[in-house]
Amino acid sequence: MIETRTLNCGLTLLVEPISSVASCSIHWLVPAGNAYENSDRIGVSTVLSEMLFRGAGSRDSRKLSNDMDKIGLERDGGVSGPHAWLMGSVLAQYLDPALELLTDVICAPSLPSEALPACKSLSQQAIESLADEPQQEVMLHVRRRHRAEPFNRSGYGYTDVIDSVSTEELTEFWKAGFVPENSFLGLAGAVDADSVAKRLDSLLAGWSGNRAEPEVLKPAISGHGHLSRDSSQVHLGMGWNAPRAEEDDAILERIATRILGGSTSGRLFTEVRQRRSLCYSVSAVYRARRDEGLVSLYAGTTPERAAETLEVCRQEIERMSAGVEQEEFDRAMIGLRGGTVFNGERTQARAAALVGDQYALGRVRTMEERLGELDEITLEGLNEYLARRVSPVPTVVTVGPEPIGADFEEETPLCHP
Amino acid sequence: MIETRTLNCGLTLLVEPISSVASCSIHWLVPAGNAYENSDRIGVSTVLSEMLFRGAGSRDSRKLSNDMDKIGLERDGGVSGPHAWLMGSVLAQYLDPALELLTDVICAPSLPSEALPACKSLSQQAIESLADEPQQEVMLHVRRRHRAEPFNRSGYGYTDVIDSVSTEELTEFWKAGFVPENSFLGLAGAVDADSVAKRLDSLLAGWSGNRAEPEVLKPAISGHGHLSRDSSQVHLGMGWNAPRAEEDDAILERIATRILGGSTSGRLFTEVRQRRSLCYSVSAVYRARRDEGLVSLYAGTTPERAAETLEVCRQEIERMSAGVEQEEFDRAMIGLRGGTVFNGERTQARAAALVGDQYALGRVRTMEERLGELDEITLEGLNEYLARRVSPVPTVVTVGPEPIGADFEEETPLCHP
Repeated sequence: MIETRTLNCGLTLLVEPISSVASCSIHWLVPAGNAYENSDRIGVSTVLSEMLFRGAGSRDSRKLSNDMDKIGLERDGGVSGPHAWLMGSVLAQYLDPALELLTDVICAPSLPSEALPACKSLSQQAIESLADEPQQEVMLHVRRRHRAEPFNRSGYGYTDVIDSVSTEELTEFWKAGFVPENSFLGLAGAVDADSVAKRLDSLLAGWSGNRAEPEVLKPAISGHGHLSRDSSQVHLGMGWNAPRAEEDDAILERIATRILGGSTSGRLFTEVRQRRSLCYSVSAVYRARRDEGLVSLYAGTTPERAAETLEVCRQEIERMSAGVEQEEFDRAMIGLRGGTVFNGERTQARAAALVGDQYALGRVRTMEERLGELDEITLEGLNEYLARRVSPVPTVVTVGPEPIGADFEEETPLCHP
Repeated sequence: MIETRTLNCGLTLLVEPISSVASCSIHWLVPAGNAYENSDRIGVSTVLSEMLFRGAGSRDSRKLSNDMDKIGLERDGGVSGPHAWLMGSVLAQYLDPALELLTDVICAPSLPSEALPACKSLSQQAIESLADEPQQEVMLHVRRRHRAEPFNRSGYGYTDVIDSVSTEELTEFWKAGFVPENSFLGLAGAVDADSVAKRLDSLLAGWSGNRAEPEVLKPAISGHGHLSRDSSQVHLGMGWNAPRAEEDDAILERIATRILGGSTSGRLFTEVRQRRSLCYSVSAVYRARRDEGLVSLYAGTTPERAAETLEVCRQEIERMSAGVEQEEFDRAMIGLRGGTVFNGERTQARAAALVGDQYALGRVRTMEERLGELDEITLEGLNEYLARRVSPVPTVVTVGPEPIGADFEEETPLCHP
């Protein structure tokens, strides 16, 4: 049973008590993602997410960190397109002080100027280290090409913006976006909705504000891109459109992508890896977001196998429109049911699902409701969807020594102006 | 309550029923790790772990994979020094067929020659992709330098061995090591010990064999190594000796390493990342194994910061011998207690802990027993340990453009003869 409350300040609180655990997980979204940055100031949210933990309320950086550690609060923070996010896990007996600390981080970060050089330096180092993570890099390039501006940003920011950002600019960005309305706070685990709501109403007294959604500035570039890299590997990324979260077809696409790209059982794995040994790793995932859905495919291969890998992936994507077999369908359904139950048993996954659902769908689903959605789908329904579905037109990016086709444009750097 | 059984075949079965979950996780160790390979045949176990899933019992490769997917069995397999391992997660109602499939994989793999080229190719591709994962690569180099042969192997094998291995050699390696005695099977989740033991006794009827432990062939090289790589990053890895799992000091070292290298709170994080911004990522972990303990440190930094990063890490390691403060101790204890509880709530982590404990300690510990071990430690006890502990002599390896000291020997390739 999930409890949904609107707190006095306007924050949406989502609580899923799980009686069998001793811990509680927390997931908090505020409307301050990188899609809100000005087009020429991409990177402000990146530095801000480093600065958030450098002191808050009455605590300086060291004391904030120590006090979080004193209660064993495991935490992390970051930025997506629409949101800045904060997550934490803590033993239930420390939930109260954990909420006090995290509300300070959200509502009263110090953003001290003496911490700024260090936070800038760490943001720059994150960009430099990306060159050693080509799998992640290629998928960020796919995202930049395939999604509309400003929803196509990497989260790493641009080096010149990181260099030049001031605490005033950070404070302004924080003020505009760390507001209670359109914010979502999810709690899952050993937690009581009434008492936590009461506690939060008191902690968040005086917090106010709202924010309009970011709007599309430019349509997606799409097409094919190549990033040259002196490497013995080729990293191949693809992305194509899929249903939005609230569409009825979303559940059908979820099953279809599992059949296409499931990690040990999908057609890609069987055909590209197991049968043809074209690559060591290949998979596809579907993310149903509020404003758009996206299927992403990754394959790690070698220069001599790259063109064939792309070709076989294309064929397998195409072949889905002819429908799937009963056996593939049954396997995918069991796999998805299992995954849903496994996630239902993890408090971190549940807390993230609560806020994700509320943002994307305007409502939350229990594990049982998610299973129920699967139960309603038949093989006929899936094949009918695959037949009428518009054929995907994938955006493709490769990272490797040479482009694999004449129509692959050279990618501009992701983080360097 | 954990049940320990010796099955008729000699296999040690460890079962931890968790009543609040609907899934069951499985972790299986057999004495067929890469430490058993002949020194000139390193890579046989690598190819074997690819081949294991290519058909077993009466099922060919495709049918085995399909039948696992039909019950939603999430699985993985691999090799460590002492063991080949297999893990799985499945909904409890499918545990029976899951065990049937996994026992076939262990006891009756087909190892078909038609799958060999594909498995070799995938093993070679895994080696090639390692060049794009320098963080993992540097820690494998540390392991190779710091541990005694044959316990220092990477798990990726050598390219020439992978090229030349035959199904006969794989079959021989499988026969010698996939034996019930000194094998450990752990189950955690929605499972009943009596019925699963009965079922396994029937599935494993006729399985027999034992294997002597691998012996040390050569002492560790230790020292300092450098692997040249055209990169804007320097990856720094360190490793040093620590107590074995069964030593009383193991729990003390666990707390000490948390204080030194905990990911958001340790001295390294505070001093190297937060205060000096020397690197984006730094942490240290302690692994207490049966025959040796090892603390590993990783830092990702830039060429101009690498020497200072190493120096500050050394200072922080050294400074531990002067003891820690009450506040650091309290924070580490809370963090470790939290981590123990969080893991206790995850069936996969519990199944792995069951077999890990049984191998390393000859007994299993419940989550409560692990918490109890922590409760017995005082600040005085920890500081007494740190004062008498032999000062660590770290093995150091860097991956990056230039060595950072004259005493850094050039590393030989990890996987190329």
